[in-house]
Amino acid sequence: MAKAGDKNEAFVTEITPRSEDFSRWYTDVIRRAELADYSPVKGCMVIRPYGYAIWELIQQGLDRRIKATGHVNAYFPLLIPQGLLLKEADHVEGFAPQVAWVTKGGDEVLEEPLLVRPTSEAIIGTMYAKWIQSWRDLPVLINQWANIVRWEKVTRLFLRTTEFLWQEGHTAHETAEEAEAETLTILRLYKEFCETELAMPVLEGRKSESEKFAGADRTYSIEALMGDGRALQAGTSHNLGQNFARAFDIQFQARDKSLQYIWGTSWGVTTRLIGGIIMTHGDDSGLVFPPRVAPYQVVIVPIPRGDWRETVLPHARQIAADLRARDVRVFLDDRDAYTPGWKFAEWEMRGVPLRLEIGPKDIEKGQALLVRRDIREKIAAPREDLPGRIVDLLAAIQQNLFERALRFRADHTTEVSSYEELKQVLEGRPGFVVAPWCGSAECEASIKAETQATIRNLPLEDTAGGTCVRCGRPGIARAYFAKAY
Amino acid sequence: MAKAGDKNEAFVTEITPRSEDFSRWYTDVIRRAELADYSPVKGCMVIRPYGYAIWELIQQGLDRRIKATGHVNAYFPLLIPQGLLLKEADHVEGFAPQVAWVTKGGDEVLEEPLLVRPTSEAIIGTMYAKWIQSWRDLPVLINQWANIVRWEKVTRLFLRTTEFLWQEGHTAHETAEEAEAETLTILRLYKEFCETELAMPVLEGRKSESEKFAGADRTYSIEALMGDGRALQAGTSHNLGQNFARAFDIQFQARDKSLQYIWGTSWGVTTRLIGGIIMTHGDDSGLVFPPRVAPYQVVIVPIPRGDWRETVLPHARQIAADLRARDVRVFLDDRDAYTPGWKFAEWEMRGVPLRLEIGPKDIEKGQALLVRRDIREKIAAPREDLPGRIVDLLAAIQQNLFERALRFRADHTTEVSSYEELKQVLEGRPGFVVAPWCGSAECEASIKAETQATIRNLPLEDTAGGTCVRCGRPGIARAYFAKAY
Repeated sequence: MAKAGDKNEAFVTEITPRSEDFSRWYTDVIRRAELADYSPVKGCMVIRPYGYAIWELIQQGLDRRIKATGHVNAYFPLLIPQGLLLKEADHVEGFAPQVAWVTKGGDEVLEEPLLVRPTSEAIIGTMYAKWIQSWRDLPVLINQWANIVRWEKVTRLFLRTTEFLWQEGHTAHETAEEAEAETLTILRLYKEFCETELAMPVLEGRKSESEKFAGADRTYSIEALMGDGRALQAGTSHNLGQNFARAFDIQFQARDKSLQYIWGTSWGVTTRLIGGIIMTHGDDSGLVFPPRVAPYQVVIVPIPRGDWRETVLPHARQIAADLRARDVRVFLDDRDAYTPGWKFAEWEMRGVPLRLEIGPKDIEKGQALLVRRDIREKIAAPREDLPGRIVDLLAAIQQNLFERALRFRADHTTEVSSYEELKQVLEGRPGFVVAPWCGSAECEASIKAETQATIRNLPLEDTAGGTCVRCGRPGIARAYFAKAY
Repeated sequence: MAKAGDKNEAFVTEITPRSEDFSRWYTDVIRRAELADYSPVKGCMVIRPYGYAIWELIQQGLDRRIKATGHVNAYFPLLIPQGLLLKEADHVEGFAPQVAWVTKGGDEVLEEPLLVRPTSEAIIGTMYAKWIQSWRDLPVLINQWANIVRWEKVTRLFLRTTEFLWQEGHTAHETAEEAEAETLTILRLYKEFCETELAMPVLEGRKSESEKFAGADRTYSIEALMGDGRALQAGTSHNLGQNFARAFDIQFQARDKSLQYIWGTSWGVTTRLIGGIIMTHGDDSGLVFPPRVAPYQVVIVPIPRGDWRETVLPHARQIAADLRARDVRVFLDDRDAYTPGWKFAEWEMRGVPLRLEIGPKDIEKGQALLVRRDIREKIAAPREDLPGRIVDLLAAIQQNLFERALRFRADHTTEVSSYEELKQVLEGRPGFVVAPWCGSAECEASIKAETQATIRNLPLEDTAGGTCVRCGRPGIARAYFAKAY
């Protein structure tokens, strides 16, 4: 039954330990666990079924929240005429270098080249100009699930790829206040989603001027902290003010009959969230998935003793059926070609939150053995109400992963008051470094050049104070600095 | 409260009656009901929220069935290197004229142009060659939900657009028999889905050689009949044999240790199904949606008498809440700016299966008035167990729409034995014309040139017989001819 020296067995042990080389560990574990693969197209990845299942769970959890806040889904064209991009000056400057251009259709060379969408403000703004006439048509609250192409020079699986998947919300409002409220509603929705579903704590805050979206008045972000102490921008929410409304002529007749420009927002999260999950929770043995987004929450490994297919397997099948009836995602690994030991290592590497072992002795004792992925605890659980126990354990694992990540962040967040201190902390695996900042782009740029750290964001409820860590002028905010993905 | 002469009121009455001009009715109703809109991109449409909601319901119903038959979802790149398309000769011949080409990324002119995927056999085949090593890896049963671009000369909303949405399954098998079984499993799955969810009867059958997919051994299709007597190809399932396996070198070590090519299939349905729903069920007043794919299954119109916001509206809200608790999709139209009469016409046009009217008198009598969209029957229903009654009525409407469409198809299917008869029937709104065919591409092409009718498909369980309606040689099949979209 053992397949010693098997190619697959070698695969499992081949992962670079996380503690040794975080970056190689990340790539190794994604490929070995078959979450994704490189494709023959430069910078584009294939999301394999085990990875795509996570995206489907993210979509479900997020789509439910987006709809519960009054938004509806729609679909806009992938290809956008060049002329539309050119209408908003900051927008074209920000995105033109990253655009993939369609210049030919069939045999015909196009008079006007088409962009493969790098984001959809231009095409959606054009349609909104057509659809919105009166204040009665507002607000327009539309979201889209779509693929995006941005010509990237350096790519990394899930985190930065030439094509990626995302959702993008685009809304139009009657007043500036409503647009700001929407921008913050979504920011909080993203935060709650990441923390509840992905067990990934995030900092919500406002981006500095130099880091804001091309064409926005204000950009807010949520920032997570990865296991190597680098930050990951996990989602953004933009208050577009009237910039796109003016560029695309999105006007409406106001209550007082005057003609007004709408106030816009846009916001999105992408498949990079999958990278965030991996880098927040993984360990030397591989992936650790929070139960709520785990493709399989429980793997059942029957112990093959004697005529186990007649004695053990029916029990394993019954447990799997009972769990499915409780909406638990379960995989029963009854493959003959692999040993239990191989399966344990394999499913540990693949991050399944809970392993259930059952053999002849367990059946005699009326129990099953449960092994938690997060803390490796082994629990002999009575067969009676096993599904209830498992549902509770999954909730406990979800909670523990979140708390562990919160503690990690607390342990890797340092308040500093001098530039020397800031530079010192930023060596190694620093996490967030919090320091007063004067608000000038110059200081921000110098710090970036000298330490590679960027301002991730400025907390929403902030008490300005202290003096800028770089120039000594009065601070306008306590900025969160970090090296980032 | 009335808004006579209102722009929107005019809109509702502006639809060309279906009986007068089917084609204009189709476009009118899509745009007035805000299912979709033209975009500034040639041949591309915007799917608006009311239309996209139908696609989401189609996705849910189909995704559930695809997964229940053992398939998993994944995602492959949008952009495909030109070299990959060229590997399968028939495939390139079939698709090259329809390709949108990316030739530039940022400022860089690409050495090798990239196709925007017109279908994904080439990129998926390339990955399968990498992933599949042994018979133990088989079958591979992967589906993808994606956008597709095909450069079309003549486009029509939902039915033929330069970009469309679809699902595409791509599977790899150990034997020819398994691939054929998979192809037919999916064909039956599509048929069951269309008939159960869309209330749209379809004919399953095999395509003629000249109509098969570029690169397939055999193509099967399901064909629906639209209200104007034209056929719509609603889905296809292809047995690819070993063609793509040879082109992309997808080999595996067989049980006998020999190296073998896999046997492949691919299959898909698209957003054109939405066009099929519209043209199967609609009438002079507009859309008629089968309840299972209706964005709203029930619209509640409170009758505004007296202080209705205090007296009627709470009842309407309670009914809406009760219906939602039963998973009924309901819209409570409590807008002040429109009269009940306007709302009745509007929601009729928008195809909502059931209207619920409630006013002070209904409340006195302890009832609500229900109006069926399909047969316009009015039912005074007691408040007691209203949700149960409504759930039953929705099922009855679904069933009635299917049976009505079946009768329509039976009334518009004609067996003919002479070419004169075939030509005669094919004038006007003929539906399917069934006639023996000798199997030659020449006869097929002549019939098409002379009547505009194509062979839609050849029934699966067919008894050959008779003589070819065109040439008089022995028939190999009873072919279903129709003018088609």
